[in-house]
Amino acid sequence: MTAITEQTLQHPSTTLIIQMVIEAWQNLQKQQPLVQCITNSVAANYAANVLLAAGASPAMIDNPFEAESFANITSALSVNLGTPTPDQMQAMKISAETVSKKSIPWVLDPVGYGAILKWRSDMADTLVSLKPTVIRGNASEISALAGNQVQSKGVDSTVASHEVYKQALPLLQNCECVAISGESDFILSKELNAVIQVNGGSFLQPKITATGCALGALIAAYCAVTTPTIATISAHIHFAIAGKLAFEKNQTVGRFNVAFLDEIYSLNVDKISNYANIEVLKF
Amino acid sequence: MTAITEQTLQHPSTTLIIQMVIEAWQNLQKQQPLVQCITNSVAANYAANVLLAAGASPAMIDNPFEAESFANITSALSVNLGTPTPDQMQAMKISAETVSKKSIPWVLDPVGYGAILKWRSDMADTLVSLKPTVIRGNASEISALAGNQVQSKGVDSTVASHEVYKQALPLLQNCECVAISGESDFILSKELNAVIQVNGGSFLQPKITATGCALGALIAAYCAVTTPTIATISAHIHFAIAGKLAFEKNQTVGRFNVAFLDEIYSLNVDKISNYANIEVLKF
Amino acid sequence: MTAITEQTLQHPSTTLIIQMVIEAWQNLQKQQPLVQCITNSVAANYAANVLLAAGASPAMIDNPFEAESFANITSALSVNLGTPTPDQMQAMKISAETVSKKSIPWVLDPVGYGAILKWRSDMADTLVSLKPTVIRGNASEISALAGNQVQSKGVDSTVASHEVYKQALPLLQNCECVAISGESDFILSKELNAVIQVNGGSFLQPKITATGCALGALIAAYCAVTTPTIATISAHIHFAIAGKLAFEKNQTVGRFNVAFLDEIYSLNVDKISNYANIEVLKF
Repeated sequence: MTAITEQTLQHPSTTLIIQMVIEAWQNLQKQQPLVQCITNSVAANYAANVLLAAGASPAMIDNPFEAESFANITSALSVNLGTPTPDQMQAMKISAETVSKKSIPWVLDPVGYGAILKWRSDMADTLVSLKPTVIRGNASEISALAGNQVQSKGVDSTVASHEVYKQALPLLQNCECVAISGESDFILSKELNAVIQVNGGSFLQPKITATGCALGALIAAYCAVTTPTIATISAHIHFAIAGKLAFEKNQTVGRFNVAFLDEIYSLNVDKISNYANIEVLKF
Repeated sequence: MTAITEQTLQHPSTTLIIQMVIEAWQNLQKQQPLVQCITNSVAANYAANVLLAAGASPAMIDNPFEAESFANITSALSVNLGTPTPDQMQAMKISAETVSKKSIPWVLDPVGYGAILKWRSDMADTLVSLKPTVIRGNASEISALAGNQVQSKGVDSTVASHEVYKQALPLLQNCECVAISGESDFILSKELNAVIQVNGGSFLQPKITATGCALGALIAAYCAVTTPTIATISAHIHFAIAGKLAFEKNQTVGRFNVAFLDEIYSLNVDKISNYANIEVLKF
Repeated sequence: MTAITEQTLQHPSTTLIIQMVIEAWQNLQKQQPLVQCITNSVAANYAANVLLAAGASPAMIDNPFEAESFANITSALSVNLGTPTPDQMQAMKISAETVSKKSIPWVLDPVGYGAILKWRSDMADTLVSLKPTVIRGNASEISALAGNQVQSKGVDSTVASHEVYKQALPLLQNCECVAISGESDFILSKELNAVIQVNGGSFLQPKITATGCALGALIAAYCAVTTPTIATISAHIHFAIAGKLAFEKNQTVGRFNVAFLDEIYSLNVDKISNYANIEVLKF
């Protein structure tokens, strides 16, 4: 990977960032990193297929009895609180502690965080204290996790990503990046001391269940091959381009979803160069 | 919604019913109701995608620790006994009790009910005693739940829906509607004091796993926006039209399933008017 | 089914084997056997859809409370160790013991077998001692299960099927067939005292999650209608032809996967005759 001086990091151009995203994608294809996913029953199949299509090697090891030994050898970990069981809760904690000790990157997706779903929210707080590499969620979840009073509608957001991203700033005390998905995605980066806005995608993505969960897993995969910031941006660009191109070909959910997987699989350097659409914002 | 006099309810014309189905579908699009689903590992992803495609907002909250707080705020609940775990069993009971107290509508799908699968059948009996709004299943399941001796083949029916619907009558003591899916679907309604036969669909639907489970979840979604009877008819018409139109375009299971989701998403007033095919039968 | 003399069994021609595969496929369509599957959260929906598309009747009964009663009436059992829970572990043992006593065929898929995933590997050893009809896995898993020291990459293989199939020979002490999937598949048969190599498929199959798990379930389905050896060969040929034909039409993972299910559903006598590609090797 291109060496990055402190100066370029502090004032990165979008061109430089996109160049680093291209390298991250190339690394993903070469290294096909092993990604342990502890995820929900809705996302398990979908997230695995997205990771395989993107070039990574998923392993859904989610029991407490193998959580430590597997976390010791994985290249990255994705923890998702969608439909937790008590056993999975234990596995999450054990695996997160294990990877944290070994500086293996991991991603936390606090699905449904808020007052109504207290059991998982307490676990999310515990996991945040273990300092995930990246925290990602929708606007409602991230805002609530940062301590704000937000209404959610079940597991779907009721607020827009551009309205809340500044509220997420305190979370950077516990992680390298915070990512908020929405019509545009916002990525708060400690490394860049900036917010990256990722445009693209399609309004149909939230009409497909578990796209957010799969995005969290893909961030973890990229974390195995580049820095947390570039990993998070890369995964969001990967999804934004796939969503945009899939929607150009198919405007109904069934065929869109098939095309979306095709486009996750078919990303290449030209598509990243032509379609990546980001802006660098100040905090 | 159009006001319904007692008289029209007691002698409803199919035209009036279809007009109410159209209004129910419009309400679903506007309100996008939150639907808590406690469902099986086979159906979780599929049912969520069907609900999203239809216009609802699914949340698969199936642990006993959040079952009460979430049931308190949901607009409807769907309980499915496909692959229950002990934790899910607890969650089902807690959530069903919670919504019953608050008069939030809920649907019971007693998958696999019968002598061979006693554990779930005992739980189904318990849940029936909590008075679900709607009970739905295939002909074997509903006949057995009503106290008849029926052979099933695993979770698939061995008897035809038109042969058993009269056997289901006693179940109306515990719910507002009983729905039996099959080549034609039969909906027993306490409100209408009649049986509605819904025609349409495709023989490929039972070749896709979890279509019945997703139908149960969709009934719950409609229950959040209209009466139990119209909700149950609406969900079955939604599926029957989607199945019919998908099959006209694709006659093999892979592409049929993709097209089915597309048609669930693409339903509109014209399609309901043109393709809804129901008959009103006496008990 | 054609009677097979001991002589033809000992020196079977590929033509005779393919004739028997055709008969097995025809039996599957006629009998639509009930197949109990205890499988993982990633594969549950996919394996059920593959079985339905192939002509069988899947039932995902995976709790310990119904494991015995259901195993008593199933036509075959498929046990898969992908994402086991403690309850599923119990169910696997109970169901395997039950079918073994009644000589109902069953298939073991020891997903992830190896030193790092000790909990499931211990259970796999226990299940092997219960003498499954067929053991199937990828090259890493089967080699490790046979007592060799192998590195795996999570749940994906790091060795090629043609390099390790001879290592699997000792496993035939505990089962009738061992199947190793890979670029070519290798099936070790006690009955034929030979190895059958099955060619075909597509390099995209391992890019779709749970294809191996679904293959294990399909072997179980065929075991209900023919001998273990012909069942195992039939399932692999079914997959190899479907993979080959799907890839001719679609070269990206999303559409390939849809087409793969279509081809599983659309197999017929002509396709088996024209495309089945096997070789008989000596041990």
